Amino acid sequence: MRKEEDFLAWYTGIVEKAGLTDKRYPIKGMNVWTPYGWKAMRLIDEMTRALCEERGYKEVNFPLLIPETEFKKEEDHIKGFGGEVYWVTHGGETKLDIRLLLRPTSETAMYPMFALWLRSHADLPLKIFQIVNVFRYETKMTRAFMRVREIHFFEGHTAQRDFEAAEAQVREDMEIWQALARELALPYLINRRPEWDKFAGAFYSLGADTITPTGKTLQVATIHHYKDNFAKPYNITYEDADGTRKHAHQTTYGMSERLIGAIVSIHGDDKGLVMPPAVAPVQVVVVPILAKGAKDEPLEAARQIAAALKADGLRAEADVRDIRPGAKYYEHELRGVPLRVEVGPRDLKEGTVVVVPRDTGGKNVHQRTRLKEAVREEFEFLRERMLAKAKRVIDDAVRAAGSVGEIKSHAGVSVIGWCGDEACGQKVEAEAGTHILGTLEAGELPAAVTVPSNCLVCGKPSAKPTIAGGTY
Amino acid sequence: MRKEEDFLAWYTGIVEKAGLTDKRYPIKGMNVWTPYGWKAMRLIDEMTRALCEERGYKEVNFPLLIPETEFKKEEDHIKGFGGEVYWVTHGGETKLDIRLLLRPTSETAMYPMFALWLRSHADLPLKIFQIVNVFRYETKMTRAFMRVREIHFFEGHTAQRDFEAAEAQVREDMEIWQALARELALPYLINRRPEWDKFAGAFYSLGADTITPTGKTLQVATIHHYKDNFAKPYNITYEDADGTRKHAHQTTYGMSERLIGAIVSIHGDDKGLVMPPAVAPVQVVVVPILAKGAKDEPLEAARQIAAALKADGLRAEADVRDIRPGAKYYEHELRGVPLRVEVGPRDLKEGTVVVVPRDTGGKNVHQRTRLKEAVREEFEFLRERMLAKAKRVIDDAVRAAGSVGEIKSHAGVSVIGWCGDEACGQKVEAEAGTHILGTLEAGELPAAVTVPSNCLVCGKPSAKPTIAGGTY
Repeated sequence: MRKEEDFLAWYTGIVEKAGLTDKRYPIKGMNVWTPYGWKAMRLIDEMTRALCEERGYKEVNFPLLIPETEFKKEEDHIKGFGGEVYWVTHGGETKLDIRLLLRPTSETAMYPMFALWLRSHADLPLKIFQIVNVFRYETKMTRAFMRVREIHFFEGHTAQRDFEAAEAQVREDMEIWQALARELALPYLINRRPEWDKFAGAFYSLGADTITPTGKTLQVATIHHYKDNFAKPYNITYEDADGTRKHAHQTTYGMSERLIGAIVSIHGDDKGLVMPPAVAPVQVVVVPILAKGAKDEPLEAARQIAAALKADGLRAEADVRDIRPGAKYYEHELRGVPLRVEVGPRDLKEGTVVVVPRDTGGKNVHQRTRLKEAVREEFEFLRERMLAKAKRVIDDAVRAAGSVGEIKSHAGVSVIGWCGDEACGQKVEAEAGTHILGTLEAGELPAAVTVPSNCLVCGKPSAKPTIAGGTY
Repeated sequence: MRKEEDFLAWYTGIVEKAGLTDKRYPIKGMNVWTPYGWKAMRLIDEMTRALCEERGYKEVNFPLLIPETEFKKEEDHIKGFGGEVYWVTHGGETKLDIRLLLRPTSETAMYPMFALWLRSHADLPLKIFQIVNVFRYETKMTRAFMRVREIHFFEGHTAQRDFEAAEAQVREDMEIWQALARELALPYLINRRPEWDKFAGAFYSLGADTITPTGKTLQVATIHHYKDNFAKPYNITYEDADGTRKHAHQTTYGMSERLIGAIVSIHGDDKGLVMPPAVAPVQVVVVPILAKGAKDEPLEAARQIAAALKADGLRAEADVRDIRPGAKYYEHELRGVPLRVEVGPRDLKEGTVVVVPRDTGGKNVHQRTRLKEAVREEFEFLRERMLAKAKRVIDDAVRAAGSVGEIKSHAGVSVIGWCGDEACGQKVEAEAGTHILGTLEAGELPAAVTVPSNCLVCGKPSAKPTIAGGTY
């Protein structure tokens, strides 16, 4: 499995070999979450929950099915999704009076309820989220976690007093993303999508884009400002302090199982996954090293060490199977367990353990008495190295481009100048065969990139760096 | 809201007033889980997860949609569900080649994968579970949590070496149920369903039935032994130690959001819900009592007490809103918060707090220094009182019946003698207008019930008590 030689073959193999998913389910693009993958996804979900709840979001769960009549209330939205929803037409043998669709996202399910819930300004902000399955009838080639037809999805929805309050919510959602990205060790650029690529019904859309080793970008989070675009057709109004009725302004925040795809793509190596410690299903595996003819002390010590780490709140396991250590190492490396702790006869004598981080494979000797602290330090060092490594990939992939020719000659992501006019933007896309991901709102460009100051097409001034590249 | 006078009106009102659900979603029988209800459900899910994982079950997540072709492989099963599934016929504008159905339960989604996963006896037992939404096109009257069209569902599925191993799994699943029922303070009878009422495709079915205050039974958990009934059509085989290929024997375990319905029905009172401490979204609310013109000390003390309880792992909140304590009490009682802690100027002077359990409303004075311990003791006493109270309801509802007339004259549940012959059983059902829930496998009958020893119809000996009653 050579990641550098054939990234797609590597990716396709590793997601199944490491136990994240099983793609043999008899519907294309609908895969089975096997225990290891599902646990990782659930750990990401738990982190997201905590970050949202700290900020006053409440978790809800809406029905999966949406009546066609509700779905069609917001015109741009139906245009954006109409061609790719699954339709339920029958219950048993009975043809339904009104067709039902499987949610592709839940605006049109939630907002009729928002209209009922929202009465006065005292109810604002209204901040809810749900973690559910959504559906898209994809016609493009599917790929595990990246492009699937049933998607594990996080969606946060808020109603706010006015435009400015919605702007503040967008900033808060960006903070949530940043906190999550830090723990997942994912570098990103937050781009404000061009008008022609914003979410169906949005006033504007921000996308958090990460970059995979192929140089393609992967959208891993989106934050939308809806203004009152949905509030009007769904009649989401409140009575303001002065007694007038006003439409709420709304925002949403979306993420999906693509985060797993990003973790696999960006952190994985030829040996397998490298899981960020915060979401690793197994954070530490303790392996006893038995000298020839040795007694069982290392076995017992491995069990004790794992138990002590577990009691301390870590996801630790002792691997006491009667197979060669090498076979164990192979398996734990494949699954990306962040730290391996080895304990052998010599360690027992000296009161030490050997800690092997997944990325370096180095052997770090620690005192057994302060192992808990050492593990947490090693996690933090590992996370930092993972982020630094991922940033180096981005440094290689991102270049400034001053012309269509320069965009085309570079397989990665280009930073261009753009005046902001749609005509110039569309021209760049058409001629360079690229996508304009938008103007940079947050995230770090490589230090070596000199941002062009004029539009690539018309030469007018370019206010912000504009990012262009291939997308998944 | 008088529970005794009009149970259904009380139930219908309370589920919305207490914030468990919103039934105004525009599809009948598909309701919105509002934050409080969803939190309670998630807490039940977490407890179920822990109980399953301790016993070697692994969590997975299967696709929602099942191809019609897979669904039809097991004949009895399709007969059982064929009339009440939702059908997806189109993706976008495209008519699908093979219709897809929304899972009503996941046997037919999972078992083609079991056939791929299972190779040798070393892979056994295979024990997985998932917590997902399932769908039934109900034509009967719907009721929140009790009978809905989108159901929040737990399903455990196992493959075992042989019939006996599957029997042992059934017993383990009963243990899981018993542990959960204990924490939810739900009394139950586990009944082995008669042949004509077993699950579609099962060899036999056990149902855990609880009894609501109306005297009707509510099935809250089911455990099925499938023998090799699914293993044969889905080709789930393994190579045994002797080299022969054998069909696995299978079991399943199901529970749903009905557990919330049972908690509401059985524990609630005229003031609102009474939540079992283990799954109460808020376990303790701390209310400051401010004497007229008093200083802010009780406010600050309430915050500190709540923070200390939270730090100890409890779901505690301080209610420091500037409204009358009575208004707070009303709300917390409606939501069934197990314990209210009051702290006023006198408590501050004496180093005490007043703990008010939701059920008795009594005022128990505790030393503030040992509040954590006191809260856990009060939880346990509360849980025991809830169970005892629920058992008294069952004592009133369950009676022995020696004739069809005695069954008919009694609104609740009857314990009858039954020889086990289908003809006799069907006759009882038809003539008494009741359902035979099955023969008693576990759970306690009221002490006052004398179990009839002969079949109600034919007079032949009755080996086990047989339970008959109305069902939800």
